[in-house]
Amino acid sequence: MTPILLNHMGNEENEYINEQVQVKNPNLDTMEEDILYHFSLSTKTHNLPEMFGDIKFVCVGGSANRMKAFAQFIHQELKLPGNPGDIKDICEGTDRYCMYKVGPVLSISHGMGVPSISIMLHELIKLLHHAQCRDVVLFRLGTSGGVGLAPGTVVITEKAVDYSFRPQFEQVVLGKVITRNTELDEGVANELLQCSSELQTFPTVIGNTMCTHDFYEGQGRLDGALCSFSQEEKLEYLRKAYEAGVRNIEMESTVFAAMCRVCGLKGAVVCVALLNRFEGDQITSSHDVLVEYQQRPQILVAHFIKKRLGYII
Amino acid sequence: MTPILLNHMGNEENEYINEQVQVKNPNLDTMEEDILYHFSLSTKTHNLPEMFGDIKFVCVGGSANRMKAFAQFIHQELKLPGNPGDIKDICEGTDRYCMYKVGPVLSISHGMGVPSISIMLHELIKLLHHAQCRDVVLFRLGTSGGVGLAPGTVVITEKAVDYSFRPQFEQVVLGKVITRNTELDEGVANELLQCSSELQTFPTVIGNTMCTHDFYEGQGRLDGALCSFSQEEKLEYLRKAYEAGVRNIEMESTVFAAMCRVCGLKGAVVCVALLNRFEGDQITSSHDVLVEYQQRPQILVAHFIKKRLGYII
Repeated sequence: MTPILLNHMGNEENEYINEQVQVKNPNLDTMEEDILYHFSLSTKTHNLPEMFGDIKFVCVGGSANRMKAFAQFIHQELKLPGNPGDIKDICEGTDRYCMYKVGPVLSISHGMGVPSISIMLHELIKLLHHAQCRDVVLFRLGTSGGVGLAPGTVVITEKAVDYSFRPQFEQVVLGKVITRNTELDEGVANELLQCSSELQTFPTVIGNTMCTHDFYEGQGRLDGALCSFSQEEKLEYLRKAYEAGVRNIEMESTVFAAMCRVCGLKGAVVCVALLNRFEGDQITSSHDVLVEYQQRPQILVAHFIKKRLGYII
Repeated sequence: MTPILLNHMGNEENEYINEQVQVKNPNLDTMEEDILYHFSLSTKTHNLPEMFGDIKFVCVGGSANRMKAFAQFIHQELKLPGNPGDIKDICEGTDRYCMYKVGPVLSISHGMGVPSISIMLHELIKLLHHAQCRDVVLFRLGTSGGVGLAPGTVVITEKAVDYSFRPQFEQVVLGKVITRNTELDEGVANELLQCSSELQTFPTVIGNTMCTHDFYEGQGRLDGALCSFSQEEKLEYLRKAYEAGVRNIEMESTVFAAMCRVCGLKGAVVCVALLNRFEGDQITSSHDVLVEYQQRPQILVAHFIKKRLGYII
């Protein structure tokens, strides 16, 4: 950990439940080498405890460019030495994901959809385990379609739900379907909502987030290559979702919540709504407006991190 | 179409079933504008028929770098004018996918997993429709885990099957699960196998390809962050897969096959096996060996394209 951060950590040991990141796989400790293939890292070729041992916050999001921008933003916010423009992609040996480390913050891209983020989470959790990290909080910072919300509203996820609005994730293990709970950490969600009221710069709500495996038919869009339903049927589905507490729709939250829970990691999902799905399907806002919207989850999580590190009292 | 290609097209009109790419969505023709959001293209801001009207072959694959390398490779193979290094990413306005056009060949990356490729396919099929393309053949060029095959073997997919070895894809539409057929075009598969015997440079088989939504638990890997099964249970699952005709495992083929079928597109899946899953889970081959393996599907499909265009008789 860099000295500047130690000065700001305050009474860290009292605030955190001092817990090591846990994998749920007895095989890992008997392996001579663990190759984190999609990160292009390995326990043999990299000193993971030295590289990552001080990580306290992991922020993940779909787009590589956005997660690079977040790394540069948090570098400025934490007033770390050096040029934010010089931050290097730790996974430069592969183009599957990109990864940036800024003090105690790791910023990683995960692509789109449950399978893509799930590969990243497996390798991330193994990385944190090999690096002997403790007290890590995970955030997914994303974009989403809003359900009955004005564009630009930020949604902190209470429960990640599936296409039937159930708080569960179906995982296939050796050909058998098992279900996992997808409730997220209530404390972190409330702390984030508190951060939003302190910032007072954009509307923020807590609500359920529906996770689908498809952007078009699965989310009731009328503008895909395939569409077999009417505008009225679409609206009826969205109304049912709203009644079940769903405030936004994205494509990664259920597996994120499920894996955090199984591995005892505190996790939060913070997504901005790019449009109100009751009003349309296409994302028509200008590039500049969309860029500003996408910064909102970053601003909120940066505030949370700064508070936790004692930058803001 | 560039003149050099017209010279090579031969009796194209007799060989192809001269069919326009079909979307299955009556709404599209009534929309004033169609924004292909994840490509950063639109019917209003781009002249899609002019940009893409001559496309005959679309090659898609997970990795952006690999699909750029393929575009440069096919540029050389087709002996097109200009410097392959100058090929520009048509989707440079976004980092979700990248796209390169080389004569009648389009090369696009799709990320990892069914949801990621499904977004790309919706927008690709709409693009081909708007551009009034005809007689298009789609290829997925990928990497995979082999089931009872030597590393480096190329698998041409006969049927894409799910975790229970069924040739179907489950799609959620407005909260209801429907199933779609995942059989691929037999003619194209056989033509690809014929290309392989002409090349005689690497082993190639036709077999079923299992598509999973997860790289670790879903594919029976013992080395994920989560693992609740034994080596013996893993091997039993892989043996059952082998008995059901599965020769490789990847993460995109079912939705690729299903969408090609629904939209009347001829599609083929060509993946190289990076390892034999009966022998392990980790990908331990050297970088150079893996790079050479990943070129094999590209070499095979390039041969197919050159034959179809009359470069090879």
